[in-house]
Amino acid sequence: MLIVQKYGGTSVGDVARIKKVAERIKATRDQGHQLVVVVSARAGVTNDLIARAKELCANPSEREMDQLLAIGEQETTALTAMALQGIGIEAVSYTGAQAGIFTDKVHTKAKIRTINPKPIEKDLKAGKIVIVAGFQGIDEEGQTTTLGRGGSDLTGIALAAALRADKCEIYTDVDGVYTADPRVVQTARKLEEISYDEMLELAASGSKVMQSRSVEFAKKYGVIFEVRSSFNQNPGTLVKEEVAYMEQVVVRGVAADKDQAKAVISNIVDKPGSAAKVFRALADAHVNVDMIVQNVGRQGFANLTFTVPQADARKAIAALKPVLEKVGGEVAVHEDIAKLSVVGVGMKTHSGVAATLFQTLADAGINIELISTSEIKIAVAIDRARADEAVRIVHSAFRLDK
Amino acid sequence: MLIVQKYGGTSVGDVARIKKVAERIKATRDQGHQLVVVVSARAGVTNDLIARAKELCANPSEREMDQLLAIGEQETTALTAMALQGIGIEAVSYTGAQAGIFTDKVHTKAKIRTINPKPIEKDLKAGKIVIVAGFQGIDEEGQTTTLGRGGSDLTGIALAAALRADKCEIYTDVDGVYTADPRVVQTARKLEEISYDEMLELAASGSKVMQSRSVEFAKKYGVIFEVRSSFNQNPGTLVKEEVAYMEQVVVRGVAADKDQAKAVISNIVDKPGSAAKVFRALADAHVNVDMIVQNVGRQGFANLTFTVPQADARKAIAALKPVLEKVGGEVAVHEDIAKLSVVGVGMKTHSGVAATLFQTLADAGINIELISTSEIKIAVAIDRARADEAVRIVHSAFRLDK
Repeated sequence: MLIVQKYGGTSVGDVARIKKVAERIKATRDQGHQLVVVVSARAGVTNDLIARAKELCANPSEREMDQLLAIGEQETTALTAMALQGIGIEAVSYTGAQAGIFTDKVHTKAKIRTINPKPIEKDLKAGKIVIVAGFQGIDEEGQTTTLGRGGSDLTGIALAAALRADKCEIYTDVDGVYTADPRVVQTARKLEEISYDEMLELAASGSKVMQSRSVEFAKKYGVIFEVRSSFNQNPGTLVKEEVAYMEQVVVRGVAADKDQAKAVISNIVDKPGSAAKVFRALADAHVNVDMIVQNVGRQGFANLTFTVPQADARKAIAALKPVLEKVGGEVAVHEDIAKLSVVGVGMKTHSGVAATLFQTLADAGINIELISTSEIKIAVAIDRARADEAVRIVHSAFRLDK
Repeated sequence: MLIVQKYGGTSVGDVARIKKVAERIKATRDQGHQLVVVVSARAGVTNDLIARAKELCANPSEREMDQLLAIGEQETTALTAMALQGIGIEAVSYTGAQAGIFTDKVHTKAKIRTINPKPIEKDLKAGKIVIVAGFQGIDEEGQTTTLGRGGSDLTGIALAAALRADKCEIYTDVDGVYTADPRVVQTARKLEEISYDEMLELAASGSKVMQSRSVEFAKKYGVIFEVRSSFNQNPGTLVKEEVAYMEQVVVRGVAADKDQAKAVISNIVDKPGSAAKVFRALADAHVNVDMIVQNVGRQGFANLTFTVPQADARKAIAALKPVLEKVGGEVAVHEDIAKLSVVGVGMKTHSGVAATLFQTLADAGINIELISTSEIKIAVAIDRARADEAVRIVHSAFRLDK
């Protein structure tokens, strides 16, 4: 089999951990597999580099940031290759450029365009383990680019697709995907498998295991991957396309995103185009809007309510000011909001899920401020102070601990 | 004017020093010049990387060492470009590969083959300061290579040649080239200028200012360069082709290399080929032999004496063992040797130089163990414990302090 493994920053955090990773790679190879390994920068290195940069320049060019940050992963790739050589295994390290990972020109958040699999395939054929720097690529002019947050996961999954790998393993510091955050819900269970869509909803709902873009990429190219821990031998969670028997499942997991604020625009003129103007202004200001609800207020006026990441709340108010001067209405922001999401593929055919969720929260006296639904998710905005408690009682109400 | 500046590891040792370097670059630019700047890794970074590598693998592949070590200079280039951006100057950083510095495939001590000046010229034309990573290049297969000791100086001088720069400035932590080591000889004077050949003899004689290969490269391509300090505004020493008026000079400087050992092979059979076998064996073992003297001993036998770097002494003995079993003879190594060199272009026509040197040492009771001469140098091997004293009295005997 050809296996792509990706190790995150804590998994390769220091020399001792890199040795452990090398042993894990060796164990996989000793089973007769070919391996391509993607590594992140050592935990902390990227932040150190950014700090040094900021001391020299408040606003360095993004091209230079990419030139600088790319060295973090380059260091770990070379060290990992050496660790393998140290235990008698032929290994060779690749920068993003050497691995033929071509991106667009958007520095600090480049998108992968194509991967030339030839150089890696040649070294694999020669019996070598290939170690590739995550998070980075090269544009058509030879400039170094980086892929932005979650970039190393994306490198792993994109290489698995380009090389038609049989398996892709994303090693991180958690055991897999759980029915809820195990730090909040003691009875949370690790899922053996989960569909791309469920994983996407969980990612968008504050489950920190992976960034959405990597899951979307995997879904698009049909890359089956396993999320598992590099610190133990436990099996992880397999992420793949929804399969028939999954349909029986109703609720797969509960997640809370405690980093939300709610904005309410009241008394906006209820005519076509008003809402569009509001959300265009927010989009132009790069504010990520999540849940949106509109309801009719007094005659001819509407109320628009939506959630944004806490950090974007001020930016949202500033962006809305000129619009509201034109279309009327006032904005009020309520911080201290959490979004609780219940996710599962079977849910769309089970209206009982919503009823159970609402009743459970009502019984505990937790007020629901907003509701939004998708095919496989019901999300509610609630008081942030009660978020952990809410996750626990909802997790239990759907018998996820069983 | 187009000026190439090269800053060494102590000159860019930390963020504060990188800021100082940026100000110096700005001052040069404000005089209306175009600039290409070569930087080394921050002092200590390369050693840290090597230490980390050695923890993982006793003997990592040289390809991986190059992949690893190249990041040291990449960091400083990006930080230096950012420091310039921080004071409002457009700057762009280049890796060795991006700068089109093509080398042979000999990892860890690659030789520069060609430089494609086009990318740098384009950015210069656009008014940007170009910062290039020293010490590194790329081979024709896209592998990262490094140039070995003194590699960043070489990058600076090679770029000056390829770009037909008007001036090349090598910034280091010393003020220039002195008549003797100022830490040993208080009255040592900084030389305004020196010829390539004199600089080469001084480099080979333990003057640590620059590695020979960079000076040889500069001589070959006629690159005039100035060695000066980045910590003050003092003019440095100009290194250039010997010019007419230099001929008046007899002795330019005195240097001592205190890192030598002397090997004496006695009773070797005095027939053609014996010495060749000895030095072939040493060359195969990569032992650098410096001074060589042969004299005839008892009939039919000869004694061979030579000096090697202290660190190579054991390697030399090991390499000689199988040879001496064939050609006969015994080897004895005397450590604690220093080589004292007197250098100057006028010397070859002044036999008095040798006489003065020998008499001065004799008057001080310093025994001469070996003598070797070149067109512009007389070198003697003496007791290491008296090396500093010898440099002082010889410096004074040739009136170099005047």
